[in-house]
Amino acid sequence: MSKIAFLGGGSFGSALSILLAKKGNDIVIWDRKKSVMEDINNTRENSKYLKGLKFPKNIIATNDMKYAVEGAEFVVLAVPSHAIREISKTISTFISKEAVVISIAKGIEDGSYKRLSQVIEEELKNPIVVFSGPSHAEEVSIDIPTTVVVSSKDMEKAEQVQDLFFTPNLRVYTNDDLIGVEIGGAVKNIIALAAGIADGIGYGDNAKAALMTRGMHEIMKIGESLGGRKETFFGLTGMGDLIVTCTSLHSRNRRAGILIGKGKTMDEAIEEVGMVVEGIKACKTFYELKEDLKISMPITDILYKVLFKNKNPEEGVKELMERDKKSETY
Amino acid sequence: MSKIAFLGGGSFGSALSILLAKKGNDIVIWDRKKSVMEDINNTRENSKYLKGLKFPKNIIATNDMKYAVEGAEFVVLAVPSHAIREISKTISTFISKEAVVISIAKGIEDGSYKRLSQVIEEELKNPIVVFSGPSHAEEVSIDIPTTVVVSSKDMEKAEQVQDLFFTPNLRVYTNDDLIGVEIGGAVKNIIALAAGIADGIGYGDNAKAALMTRGMHEIMKIGESLGGRKETFFGLTGMGDLIVTCTSLHSRNRRAGILIGKGKTMDEAIEEVGMVVEGIKACKTFYELKEDLKISMPITDILYKVLFKNKNPEEGVKELMERDKKSETY
Repeated sequence: MSKIAFLGGGSFGSALSILLAKKGNDIVIWDRKKSVMEDINNTRENSKYLKGLKFPKNIIATNDMKYAVEGAEFVVLAVPSHAIREISKTISTFISKEAVVISIAKGIEDGSYKRLSQVIEEELKNPIVVFSGPSHAEEVSIDIPTTVVVSSKDMEKAEQVQDLFFTPNLRVYTNDDLIGVEIGGAVKNIIALAAGIADGIGYGDNAKAALMTRGMHEIMKIGESLGGRKETFFGLTGMGDLIVTCTSLHSRNRRAGILIGKGKTMDEAIEEVGMVVEGIKACKTFYELKEDLKISMPITDILYKVLFKNKNPEEGVKELMERDKKSETY
Repeated sequence: MSKIAFLGGGSFGSALSILLAKKGNDIVIWDRKKSVMEDINNTRENSKYLKGLKFPKNIIATNDMKYAVEGAEFVVLAVPSHAIREISKTISTFISKEAVVISIAKGIEDGSYKRLSQVIEEELKNPIVVFSGPSHAEEVSIDIPTTVVVSSKDMEKAEQVQDLFFTPNLRVYTNDDLIGVEIGGAVKNIIALAAGIADGIGYGDNAKAALMTRGMHEIMKIGESLGGRKETFFGLTGMGDLIVTCTSLHSRNRRAGILIGKGKTMDEAIEEVGMVVEGIKACKTFYELKEDLKISMPITDILYKVLFKNKNPEEGVKELMERDKKSETY
């Protein structure tokens, strides 16, 4: 069995660490918050991020990143997207040469517009595998059937990671379209925020389905222009993840959107959700990127104005619904 | 303003008739049930199919099909798919030559595998427009924003129907891919039934999103092989309608599935839903069709066995989840 390091003790990282511990691996979770570490070590729970779940004995938590990473065969980066570069840089001096780095974060880097695997690659020489798909932590942790996708420049390493995580209830697929997998996962958070706003305003299932359908075209448009493959966006890391994020109550992006739709400010919504809302950063980054690339992404456009330019959310959603378009062509 | 006949006083027909009446048209609703007619005429409600909605005075209900159809500029076929041929045949002797026939039913004909517009075409010489999209009656009727699609062999007539129904909250798009629009609307009911079963068993959002994603591929596969265009299936009548049908509590197909997932038989589920469950007939028909065409449609396949061959639903869904596939290619 392997030693596996998890950097970041959030909900998804915690859920996956429990799964791998149950498969017999030795896990060390590093988290910057002392309270998370103590909670896991002392109570065998992570009450802040994943209530009610017991951490098996072969998981220990630490604040010492070097201790967590040294000698680990797999290092899972389970921190928010904005922390990926710094964490990668930090571990570069003590990570094993052969360790496989697994990224479960979703987003692209602010300013540089780089995908997270590109950011990691600039800081580490290790093989990198991206892990994505429709997989709320709350369900993975209680062993409800879930399907995910792994991708990498080195598909042999992706298959290793597939074997590592595979259980009868966590079906892990491979997909060699690394760009598509990463972009799909990042952009869907923008659409989920917008869908949440529509929910918060009190629009119904019809409107949300329409929004998601058009959102899918935004994912495809930007995704293809960045080099992803169309088919990928119709797969688990595109459509599948979009659906789960826009319809599940587990989604923090959707929850933040609902609050904004009900009249809260962006900051109040972030505060109330209490976890990182990746869609907000993604919206800003992809807004700038699509302006540069001159791609039409009306949902991203309007969400940007709602979040950062004080546009009224209800007017924004109305504007989206009423775009003067008569024929259903994209 | 126009005289418009609605044949069938179900929920969706009723919702659309109210919308058109509010736009100033004169509506005659025909329904075979005397109770529905009397309810609408006497109480201005349709308490069986669309509770709590008031029918404006310019809607009258009748049991006399000839009275409803004669002189109508638009005749809306709002009956279940299995009644389309008979109704079309019946009205052929008294429908105006210029009347535009609008079909809002979803399905294909048992045995012949014909699309509903083909069935109508065999019985009537009138122009035919198909009306579809993510549009639960319950939401259309209370004027929550909704988008739909109309299609026809004669796109000028489709545009007439677009204008007829268009309101600020009912956005009507045109799409000239008649085959795609009809097939998308029919097959999504199969996937919604299966998604409902997964819900009924107690699977979560992750599993359902995966099921819907794979369902989308079944819709595309059979749809393209029957002559529909791929893009159509990613539009409102494909993906949009699939999402709304699989996630909304308004969906009777999903509701039937939930009951079956909880252990009821198909007949008990139909009884309890109390309205036509199109997905059941669609499952049988598309099962036969895909066998003929030798197309792989695993969800349809397993649902067929659950519905008609006493396969255990939980085993069926498990089988779907566990199909031995490792790479995400379609």
